[in-house]
Amino acid sequence: MKTPICEMLGIEFPLLAFSHCRDVVASVTNAGGFGVLGASSHSPEDLERELSWIDERVDGKPYGVDIVCPEKFEGKGLDLKPEQLVAMVPAQYRDYVAKILSEHGVHFEEIGEEPFRMFATLSDTIGQELLDVSFRHPIKLIANALGVPPQFMIDRAKAEGVPVAALVGAKEHAIKQVQAGVDVLVVQGTEAGGHCGEVTTMVLVPEVIEAIRPVRSVPVLAAGGIVTGRQIAASIALGAAGAWTGSVWLTTEEAETAPYTVQKMLTASSRDTVRSKGRTGKFSRQLRSAWTDAWMPEAKGPGALPLPLQSIVAENVLRRLDTLAENGNKGAQELATYWVGQGVGLMNKVKPAREVVREMIEDYLDAVERVGGSVAD
Amino acid sequence: MKTPICEMLGIEFPLLAFSHCRDVVASVTNAGGFGVLGASSHSPEDLERELSWIDERVDGKPYGVDIVCPEKFEGKGLDLKPEQLVAMVPAQYRDYVAKILSEHGVHFEEIGEEPFRMFATLSDTIGQELLDVSFRHPIKLIANALGVPPQFMIDRAKAEGVPVAALVGAKEHAIKQVQAGVDVLVVQGTEAGGHCGEVTTMVLVPEVIEAIRPVRSVPVLAAGGIVTGRQIAASIALGAAGAWTGSVWLTTEEAETAPYTVQKMLTASSRDTVRSKGRTGKFSRQLRSAWTDAWMPEAKGPGALPLPLQSIVAENVLRRLDTLAENGNKGAQELATYWVGQGVGLMNKVKPAREVVREMIEDYLDAVERVGGSVAD
Repeated sequence: MKTPICEMLGIEFPLLAFSHCRDVVASVTNAGGFGVLGASSHSPEDLERELSWIDERVDGKPYGVDIVCPEKFEGKGLDLKPEQLVAMVPAQYRDYVAKILSEHGVHFEEIGEEPFRMFATLSDTIGQELLDVSFRHPIKLIANALGVPPQFMIDRAKAEGVPVAALVGAKEHAIKQVQAGVDVLVVQGTEAGGHCGEVTTMVLVPEVIEAIRPVRSVPVLAAGGIVTGRQIAASIALGAAGAWTGSVWLTTEEAETAPYTVQKMLTASSRDTVRSKGRTGKFSRQLRSAWTDAWMPEAKGPGALPLPLQSIVAENVLRRLDTLAENGNKGAQELATYWVGQGVGLMNKVKPAREVVREMIEDYLDAVERVGGSVAD
Repeated sequence: MKTPICEMLGIEFPLLAFSHCRDVVASVTNAGGFGVLGASSHSPEDLERELSWIDERVDGKPYGVDIVCPEKFEGKGLDLKPEQLVAMVPAQYRDYVAKILSEHGVHFEEIGEEPFRMFATLSDTIGQELLDVSFRHPIKLIANALGVPPQFMIDRAKAEGVPVAALVGAKEHAIKQVQAGVDVLVVQGTEAGGHCGEVTTMVLVPEVIEAIRPVRSVPVLAAGGIVTGRQIAASIALGAAGAWTGSVWLTTEEAETAPYTVQKMLTASSRDTVRSKGRTGKFSRQLRSAWTDAWMPEAKGPGALPLPLQSIVAENVLRRLDTLAENGNKGAQELATYWVGQGVGLMNKVKPAREVVREMIEDYLDAVERVGGSVAD
């Protein structure tokens, strides 16, 4: 197939697949799409290992890396150690989390000795280190998941001849990104899993394309809710060069999603997700659960802390709850959640990633025919 | 063009245009689309006059009527008079509205002697009366804007050989509608102006098509955020038979939208709308304004009353504010609002309705070519 993104990235099908799981990245790339490894919580050593693993399996076919260099976070510029950040969490949050858990029959002690922990490395230099590792591998795209990419990232990518992608959830941000020198915009609607804005994919994609035209037109990838080929065709109709997907890979055979959460996703409808600050401190879409409910304004709790402190409160607790849920703990099952978009309503079966790509291509071709048929004599 | 809806309704372009304004209905129908008159607040006499006016102008070309027969409303079955319903509004609402207005320098007295009034006729028999009027005219579609259409509506339409359409915002409702005998589903995403659910058009359209298949497949119209031809093409890609539009007609030359509100719409971005209960008591998407802010949970007001009591509180006040806003009253300008979808971000110029249709067709054809080109050699 032929779209501006197929040409830019050297792929056969205009599908980008974001995943934290190297197997998904390699499978999608091998199936004719473009895998993007989400490396936001990787150490440089981990990332080196993952990318080498991918290189051994994709035989030179193209893939990319997504890292997070947020413009703003609590403690930025102070170069704080993880334990210093953990110490910044007010004491009342320990009490509140203990209360949430106990209301569902889970004892705070079951979470382990250090319930509040920092997973992602969010130092001032980590972005630079992850870039160094990434560019030791033949990556064909580098993406920044949050905010305008820092200048060193744009400069380095230009020097390496690799395009830079950035996620946007609003027209105003898209204009800033293009002005900063971004080469590909991932225009992410509110239906997306993970961090997202308020505007839907159907509206935001044409609005952004229109808004950046006077500045500089770059290829746009539609993101948010896209789990089928017909939605990728719809994205092309809207003027996008392709689609950026994430949630759909969470229920593939290759994914490392917690087993109980996979079961929740398979039975969830599109109405079972919620935009909540309860996991990272910024709005991100997740499966609705007793945990996300506890961080809504209606719950009258202390409210979410800013990035990255809320992740310190939530991330380890939720990972532990996943294990408890898998072992049959009812309360943990009620609390268990993970990032996923509204497209979860269309994710009803565990499949291999290559099978998902194959079905998407078929469904895409059907949609192309349907659209063409509407103007046939 | 050719889609199931073009064939069912005898139209050239798969575009349905909902409007309270008869001029828009006639213009769209005459331009090759299908106008639908929103008659929810019409008396039978008004509706008779409007439909005769349309008949005189469309030369037999097809159009439809949309009425509201809600399944549930406060006082249903009691056949209350408007003044009895007005008397059901608790006294504190008068105080709260006076407070909202005074915070923006508007005196409650400026609203007139009867600030709280019932406009829509929401009696137990009004639906029947409006149907009688509608079927005295050559309508080609009857739509019910809220909930499952009552049995008398479905039976009458079948007897008249006219398809029944119904709006849905969730998969579960779509299944109920199809089981009840509805012929066309208007699948409305959260980005839509007016009453809407939480799921976006991009996700809801394929989800509903998939969900109704085992029950009965009927043509689906995509609705929510659709203001351009490329979005109509995207709807066809998603599996819809066409698009149902509303907001885009509010800034046409023919529309009767309050002039100050038109100006607000032309400069608004997609982020300037909000889902609020503040106008009708049910969630509906509107331009965000000081009025909608005052009914959000954060405002800590008394909260919206149920349908139709909140309309009694809001509707006349907002209409009066429109007049004050037009006359330069700053506070009224801050408060002024109207239903509109996120597509408002793409509505930047006042145009004649026939010009909007012409541009949509061109944009649609471009999108068809783009989609087809993606698989060309």
